[in-house]
Amino acid sequence: MAAAIALAEGTVPRRMTALARIWRKRCASPPADFPRWPLERISGRVNDRLPSQRAPRAARGKETPMPTVQPKAIVFDTFGSVVDWRSSLIVDLTAYGETKGVKADWAALVDAWRAAYHPSMDRVRKGQQPWTKLDDLHRASLDHLVAEFGIKGLSEADLEHINLGWHRLHPWPDSVPGLTRLKSRFIIGPLSNGNVSLLLNMAKFAGIPWDMIFGSDLFQHFKPDPETYLGTAHLLGIRPGQLMMAAAHNNDLAAARSCGLLTAFFPRPGEYGPHQKRDTKAEADWDIVATDIQDLATQLGV
Amino acid sequence: MAAAIALAEGTVPRRMTALARIWRKRCASPPADFPRWPLERISGRVNDRLPSQRAPRAARGKETPMPTVQPKAIVFDTFGSVVDWRSSLIVDLTAYGETKGVKADWAALVDAWRAAYHPSMDRVRKGQQPWTKLDDLHRASLDHLVAEFGIKGLSEADLEHINLGWHRLHPWPDSVPGLTRLKSRFIIGPLSNGNVSLLLNMAKFAGIPWDMIFGSDLFQHFKPDPETYLGTAHLLGIRPGQLMMAAAHNNDLAAARSCGLLTAFFPRPGEYGPHQKRDTKAEADWDIVATDIQDLATQLGV
Repeated sequence: MAAAIALAEGTVPRRMTALARIWRKRCASPPADFPRWPLERISGRVNDRLPSQRAPRAARGKETPMPTVQPKAIVFDTFGSVVDWRSSLIVDLTAYGETKGVKADWAALVDAWRAAYHPSMDRVRKGQQPWTKLDDLHRASLDHLVAEFGIKGLSEADLEHINLGWHRLHPWPDSVPGLTRLKSRFIIGPLSNGNVSLLLNMAKFAGIPWDMIFGSDLFQHFKPDPETYLGTAHLLGIRPGQLMMAAAHNNDLAAARSCGLLTAFFPRPGEYGPHQKRDTKAEADWDIVATDIQDLATQLGV
Repeated sequence: MAAAIALAEGTVPRRMTALARIWRKRCASPPADFPRWPLERISGRVNDRLPSQRAPRAARGKETPMPTVQPKAIVFDTFGSVVDWRSSLIVDLTAYGETKGVKADWAALVDAWRAAYHPSMDRVRKGQQPWTKLDDLHRASLDHLVAEFGIKGLSEADLEHINLGWHRLHPWPDSVPGLTRLKSRFIIGPLSNGNVSLLLNMAKFAGIPWDMIFGSDLFQHFKPDPETYLGTAHLLGIRPGQLMMAAAHNNDLAAARSCGLLTAFFPRPGEYGPHQKRDTKAEADWDIVATDIQDLATQLGV
């Protein structure tokens, strides 16, 4: 597999070797029921990522087609990238608490809830816990936090309603118009750690026009496990290099790229509220760097 | 499980016992990774199917809510029910044959191709062949039929193009407007023996506004295996009784009902062309019997 990359047109820059190493480590052994696709055909795309290291056009000869970034499908990280989970949940829970007469620092609860997100998935990813869908991980974290915050007076129905707050997230202003434009030319879907029902209910709530929902329960793996990225390409019947991962999170794109996907970054500097420190800008030469999803559509010529 | 049904309100009609027997046979043992949902809560729906055998409203008391047929999601059989595979393929292949200068009785080929459909899936369903997605079963049948019909002059690219004819099927005239209306209130999707990529490409080609694609490759089972019906409810996070199967095929609905789903029938008397003998009318008291998908929307109050 590394050889297939190394054999791509001409010089192999040092960064390619690192990429090949990551690929070998992460993606050499997809699940046994995954098909093998022709890996050698990604070479054009890999070089396309490294314009400054690419041989000049003249040296490649006229018969070499210019690689272009034109995916067949684009999948989107959802929490933070398409929807504003933090503001949505703070507004939703504050209003609900007022209705129910339950006082709490809802903003702090939401931040703590999100802080529990990655550790809870990592327990599943590391095999310390059997497959558990995100709704259930959210609920376990919520129960823990309600006790920790000393919040009193919430019934089982209240807790269930609060937990389903993740199904009622609002999109960023550019998300629905940008996705609607992209849908006219590309297959679009979420590739998210949310389960199918969460993402589908959110789409119905927020009017997000997905073509297909790639929930983590389809793969029984959370990102950044390669089964999610490769599994999506497999279900779409396309090669990883024909699939673009679009996200506001550099680490998601790094994992997608290590599996051979195209990548698009757009920042969401307000995702974590006033305290955001990470993902304020692109940290690698992603195939596309956009200001938001509308700009992504523009850059893809839609 | 039979007991849960038998304990439903009051008298247990004889037909309920038969239903319970089918249920026990088909659905008592869903795959080990499927959750157990509260089966006792389906009682209202089961009784709802049998209006003539239901206790009069007065006898049940005012506090008993009238069961209504209001699913949370509706999934559709696709080939024949939503799209007109026969006419679409005959027109598509005849035009392609003329372009390529290849003569054949394309209508007969299409009918023979469809006749190979169920036997090819049954080989997988009976374990005589490992899981194979429908695109690949179609291709194997096509290769066989091209030889049998003595069709000459088709390249590998031609065969691939012809095989993807199943991705280019046209909807019946009522399908897209009816589904668009239903989408405003319900989650809608195909529950089809087609694979995700086939159904997704078809949706993009034909403008079918699905919320989610339930391809058979998500379950690695073909209908009427219960894993498809129950697996869809599971992914949606709803009980089988909250999911409606809509189809122009009575046997599909019988299998769905045996798994606890709501059912809606609408005939497609032109599906098999002039020789159609089956499925010209509802053969059981399905929850809804409609004239087409527009009428289904009307009957569901959309």
